[in-house]
Amino acid sequence: MRVDVVAVGTELLLGQIVDTNSSWIGEQLAAHGFDSLLQTKVGDNLDRVVTAFRRALAEADAVIVCGGLGPTHDDLTRQAIAAVMGVDLALDDEIADRIRELFAARGRPMPENNLTQAMVPAGASVIPQTRGTAPGLICPVTLDGAAKVLYAVPGVPHEMKDMLERAVLPDLHARSGEAAVIVSRTLRTWGDSESGLAERLAPLIDELDRVGNPTLAFLASGWEGIKVRLTAKAADSATAADLLSQWSTRVEDLVAGNLFGYDDDTMESVVLDRLRDRGLTLGLAESATGGLLAARLTAVAGADDVLRGSIVSHETGLRQRLLGAGATVGVEDEQTAGAMAVGARRALDSSVGLAVTGGSVPADQTGAAVSAVCIGLALGDAVVTTRLLLPGQHDQIRQRSVIGALDFLRRQLLRP
Amino acid sequence: MRVDVVAVGTELLLGQIVDTNSSWIGEQLAAHGFDSLLQTKVGDNLDRVVTAFRRALAEADAVIVCGGLGPTHDDLTRQAIAAVMGVDLALDDEIADRIRELFAARGRPMPENNLTQAMVPAGASVIPQTRGTAPGLICPVTLDGAAKVLYAVPGVPHEMKDMLERAVLPDLHARSGEAAVIVSRTLRTWGDSESGLAERLAPLIDELDRVGNPTLAFLASGWEGIKVRLTAKAADSATAADLLSQWSTRVEDLVAGNLFGYDDDTMESVVLDRLRDRGLTLGLAESATGGLLAARLTAVAGADDVLRGSIVSHETGLRQRLLGAGATVGVEDEQTAGAMAVGARRALDSSVGLAVTGGSVPADQTGAAVSAVCIGLALGDAVVTTRLLLPGQHDQIRQRSVIGALDFLRRQLLRP
Repeated sequence: MRVDVVAVGTELLLGQIVDTNSSWIGEQLAAHGFDSLLQTKVGDNLDRVVTAFRRALAEADAVIVCGGLGPTHDDLTRQAIAAVMGVDLALDDEIADRIRELFAARGRPMPENNLTQAMVPAGASVIPQTRGTAPGLICPVTLDGAAKVLYAVPGVPHEMKDMLERAVLPDLHARSGEAAVIVSRTLRTWGDSESGLAERLAPLIDELDRVGNPTLAFLASGWEGIKVRLTAKAADSATAADLLSQWSTRVEDLVAGNLFGYDDDTMESVVLDRLRDRGLTLGLAESATGGLLAARLTAVAGADDVLRGSIVSHETGLRQRLLGAGATVGVEDEQTAGAMAVGARRALDSSVGLAVTGGSVPADQTGAAVSAVCIGLALGDAVVTTRLLLPGQHDQIRQRSVIGALDFLRRQLLRP
Repeated sequence: MRVDVVAVGTELLLGQIVDTNSSWIGEQLAAHGFDSLLQTKVGDNLDRVVTAFRRALAEADAVIVCGGLGPTHDDLTRQAIAAVMGVDLALDDEIADRIRELFAARGRPMPENNLTQAMVPAGASVIPQTRGTAPGLICPVTLDGAAKVLYAVPGVPHEMKDMLERAVLPDLHARSGEAAVIVSRTLRTWGDSESGLAERLAPLIDELDRVGNPTLAFLASGWEGIKVRLTAKAADSATAADLLSQWSTRVEDLVAGNLFGYDDDTMESVVLDRLRDRGLTLGLAESATGGLLAARLTAVAGADDVLRGSIVSHETGLRQRLLGAGATVGVEDEQTAGAMAVGARRALDSSVGLAVTGGSVPADQTGAAVSAVCIGLALGDAVVTTRLLLPGQHDQIRQRSVIGALDFLRRQLLRP
């Protein structure tokens, strides 16, 4: 089944926003066994949007449209769909009420034009919003006697992703009628490069190329590590699941210590679970990461029962007062990181203390800026530390320091 | 002059690589006064690539193609161009020699397939490489009697950018003859919905629709607020800039207090600049935002001279010890937020204290979870507080709390 994508928005053509939506959708479609052969960006112009929809529908079995569902004059996706379907738009009272309630809940008056988001093409069904105001649409279209379908989802990434997983992909599977079930499992790894993993997995990859099912793909996720995705196809989910776990085990043996989780696991969620399982609480002291370590941990719902808090400061005088002597040493070394970890554990009354400190060091021969980030961990009677030499820009270094510190804690927790 | 873009590569459709090239090209085209109305991603399939080129050339005056110029079997751009031009490919000895020299210089043997990169369609002229091995191409195409041009550049971003600036844009200007310049200004706003702004700007938008230049567009940026973008077209930059600032002033008057910055400004950078200008330092106490407020501020390079630190904890006992009495009140109310702000200022030895606390309140009638987030600010002799009712998911509420707290501080700093 061929599913093409149309991203609507002049800002995409002008490069003011990079179209990451169609890439993400393409990745999901591939994982679910659908082909996506053409992806288009079109501006906020009714004629051109209508033409783009017609062309996509002429070649594909289904089309996913992102964006242009907002309340303003340049949001044209609804009108374009009505034109392609050859139907009128009508107000959906349920949606209208929900939008009114949303504004009421925020204690804000609702500008009338918001109700344009409640206009639905006749014959289309609605994908309810759970996060924003603009609902999605599932629009059956008959083109030259062929039955096709057009899905409209918002351009706001988290709203788009929610609707794709909740409504669009299931609907596509239902329509595709393929007996085959596609199941994938993603192994989350950290600490080795894509090429390094490819080398370790080479014999297994050759074998998979021969059998052809499941397929294996590497997905680089920047500082979040490398994802190894296995996708198995079978007549029923049980068979697909068996096939998957059978090969997954073999991959895990080769990836070994770099494997930190599966599918939706993140380094944060895994570390929090490990600590929770052992009845441990965590206290942080952050200099180099400026609160990012705490922010990423607290982004995980339910982190509060494990994370006691974080003391964020780059200023040595403050660190002395808040974390105690030792954390005061001007030099950003491992000894300082260790002292900060002990201080954080004391100040935040936690059972484990984790600290990140550091600063940039003189540029290396290549002239690239390098930062030395020191990580300290107070766990039980032990204080363990490590030092990471990180190249890159300010934000890259912060992000790598956070994931590096979490992985250091994760590996230490694996020890008996 | 209309210049559309085709990005070639199956990895783009599969989402393994995000197509940032066409966004960057779109930005350059706009800045140089060229329209780009359709941008397409197509996979490594000869028929589909040829069709994509033909379609783009049929509608646009010029087409820029990125990618598919490499040496491997799935690099098909050269063959596709030859097919569209109806000519043969011939080996260009100069390019072939240069590629051989490149490998020799690196002391590596040259795989023969590299010479496919020296194949040039008859009638095309070459854009020499200065960084990689694959040269670019300038290909005149006559389609239905109309003279068009197709440019082929590598998919490697820095090679593509080099060729675009060095050869493609100058060639486009030479062909277009027109010297129009396009200049954009983005007004960053926060605190009103897209529809609310649209209503306030309605008369001005009508007027702009009549005059047609500059154009106005809204860009929703989730919890970062709404961007209002003005784009002016004129014969020279000076005239465009005048036109822009003239209309920008009128928009600013209508947007009033919701305007927080321009173009690349962020709420964080603006607040940090305001504090720095007044010689103030900032200390934070975070409960509801779990370190995210500090993390976003420290993401701005050079934040350290303003931000002293943050004390992150959701636990009232800890808050009492770290922030002092008053921050201990069990209830997450404005009084608590105020006391936390005063405590943060004292504990972190800063001139300004900002605190965010709160928790979820019983679900409203719509069943949607709503959180009451309280913000406290200790500024000079005053302690001011506010309370935000925020619907949505865990992360949305955290993000909205951060931006809400920063905007509250920004508005207070505006006061005499």
